[in-house]
Amino acid sequence: MIDLTKIEYFTEATSVDAVVGRNGPGAHKRLAEVWASLVKHLHAFAKDIELRPEEWDLAIDFLTRTGQLCDENRQEFVLLSDVIGLSMLTDAINHRRPPGATENTVLGPFHVVGAPEFEMGANISLDGKGESCLFEGRVLDTDGNPIEGARIDVWCDNEDGYYDVQQPDIQPKWNNRGIFTTGEDGTYQFRGVKPVSYPIPHDGPVGQLLIQLDRHPYRPAHMHYMVTATGFEKIVTHTFVGSDEYLKSDAVFGVKATLAAPFEPNPGGVTKWHSPFDFIMVPAGSAEAAE
Amino acid sequence: MIDLTKIEYFTEATSVDAVVGRNGPGAHKRLAEVWASLVKHLHAFAKDIELRPEEWDLAIDFLTRTGQLCDENRQEFVLLSDVIGLSMLTDAINHRRPPGATENTVLGPFHVVGAPEFEMGANISLDGKGESCLFEGRVLDTDGNPIEGARIDVWCDNEDGYYDVQQPDIQPKWNNRGIFTTGEDGTYQFRGVKPVSYPIPHDGPVGQLLIQLDRHPYRPAHMHYMVTATGFEKIVTHTFVGSDEYLKSDAVFGVKATLAAPFEPNPGGVTKWHSPFDFIMVPAGSAEAAE
Repeated sequence: MIDLTKIEYFTEATSVDAVVGRNGPGAHKRLAEVWASLVKHLHAFAKDIELRPEEWDLAIDFLTRTGQLCDENRQEFVLLSDVIGLSMLTDAINHRRPPGATENTVLGPFHVVGAPEFEMGANISLDGKGESCLFEGRVLDTDGNPIEGARIDVWCDNEDGYYDVQQPDIQPKWNNRGIFTTGEDGTYQFRGVKPVSYPIPHDGPVGQLLIQLDRHPYRPAHMHYMVTATGFEKIVTHTFVGSDEYLKSDAVFGVKATLAAPFEPNPGGVTKWHSPFDFIMVPAGSAEAAE
Repeated sequence: MIDLTKIEYFTEATSVDAVVGRNGPGAHKRLAEVWASLVKHLHAFAKDIELRPEEWDLAIDFLTRTGQLCDENRQEFVLLSDVIGLSMLTDAINHRRPPGATENTVLGPFHVVGAPEFEMGANISLDGKGESCLFEGRVLDTDGNPIEGARIDVWCDNEDGYYDVQQPDIQPKWNNRGIFTTGEDGTYQFRGVKPVSYPIPHDGPVGQLLIQLDRHPYRPAHMHYMVTATGFEKIVTHTFVGSDEYLKSDAVFGVKATLAAPFEPNPGGVTKWHSPFDFIMVPAGSAEAAE
C-alpha cells in the first residue's frame, strides 16, 4: 500500500499546482499555457469570493442553459462573452494600432458574407425604413495617402432596430448591406439610413444576468464597417451616432472615443443626414498589428 | 453631440473597471461581488495569455458543445468543473475541519436518495460481481465518543466499474447501495465488494480536453459515504483503496491523504477483504465548519 502521507494531494493551498502539474509530457503546448493561466485565475476567483456550494450549483445550471439555448441563429455564449467584456478585450489585445489609425471594435453576429457590390453613391436601404443618410469619406494610409481598391463592406439595422437576417420574412434580403470599392482617390460614398440603438437578445440566461446586475441590454446606434485592402491590416469596426443616449453604456463595451462619427443635418442634400468618416489603415504585418 | 474624448471607454487598461462599473445601484449584492472578482480574473487571464481570436472561437465552441451534451443523465459542465479542480476546491473551501476530523471529498454524480435501509452486517452487493469485502468501523465525535443514530449512506461501483444507475438494464436496482444506522456503541459493519477504478465519462468535450492535456480519465477505486447525525456536520466523502494505481492521479482530484482505507486480506472471515475506517464528526455550526 502506498504511504499516502508522502504524496502531495490537492488542498486549498496546493490546488493550482495539483491541477496544472497533472498534465502529461504530451500536452499540447499552447493549450497547456492557456490552461495553466486559466486554472490559476479560476482558483484565485473561487478563493477570493469563497464560492459557496449553492452558487456553484447556480453556475453549472447557468452555463448549461446558456449552451442549450445556442443554435444556428442564436449564440448565447458569445453574448455572455460580450457582456463580460471578453469579446472586446480579445479584439483589443489582437488589434493594437498606432495613434491615428482607425481602431477595431467587435464584429457582432450579424455580418453576412456575400453582400451585393455597388457603385459609389448607391442606396443600400431597400425598405426605406429610417431617416436617410449620406455616408462618405476616404480610405487612407497612415501618411494620408489614398488607398485604391479598398473594399468597404457595410451593414446596419433599419429604423425598427433589426438587421435583415433577423427579419427574413419582413425585410428584403440584403437590406442595409453592401460592398463598395474605392478608386484611385480613395474616397467612398453611399446612401442608407441613420442606424438606431437596439437591445442585444435578452430573453435568455444572459438577459437574466443583466437584470440581476441592474444593466440594460442596449447598444448605441452604429454602422458596421469591414474595410480590407491589399497590404493593409483588415479593419472591423463601427461608426457610432455621436448623440446616442447609450454611448456611455454600450451593453457590449464596443464604443471607442475615436469611432464617434458626426451625423449632421444635410440641408439641400438628397438625404436628411450626412455622416463623414475617414478610415486610416496600417500596413499588414506591422509590429503592433501582428500581435 | 457628446464629446467622446471626455468619456472613459473600455480599453485594455480600463477593461475591468469599465465592466464592473457598469452595474446599476440595484444589482444583487452577492452577485455583484462574485461578478467583480470573475471579471478581474477572467480579464487577467485573457491578458496574461494574450488570447487569440481563433482561441476565443474554440472556447465558444467548446462551451457550447459542453452545454449541449447535458441532459438528465449527463452533466458535462460538472465534469469540466471536476477536471479543472473547481469542484474539489469549492468543497475544500466550504468544509474546513480541524485535524483529526474526517475530511470531505466530492459527492460525485451517482448518489441516489432513498437507498434501502439495512440492519448492520447486511450485504449490499446484489449481483455478486466483485471481490467480497467487509466494511466496518465507528462513528465518533472529536473527543472519541461514539455517536448513536448516525446514518451511513454508502454506494460504489461493481467489478465492471459501473454504478447501478449507469446500467439499469444490467444491474439490480440499488445494487451496491444501502443505509445503516449506528446504535449506542457507534459502530457500523456491512458487506459489499471491493470497489474498482473507473474512467469518468470521456466521450465528450471534456474527454477531448483530457487527451489534449495528456491526462487519463480514471478515478482510483473508492467507496462513497454520506454520514449524517443530529448536531454534527454532514460528512460527504470516500474511502480509497490504498493500493490503487490511480491514487496519485485521480482525474477529479478527490484523494486526500486521510481518506486512504486499508483493504486487508480477511483470512477465515466471510469475505475476501476487510476494510476498517472510523468517521470523526465535528459539531454542526462549529467555527470552521460553518464557513
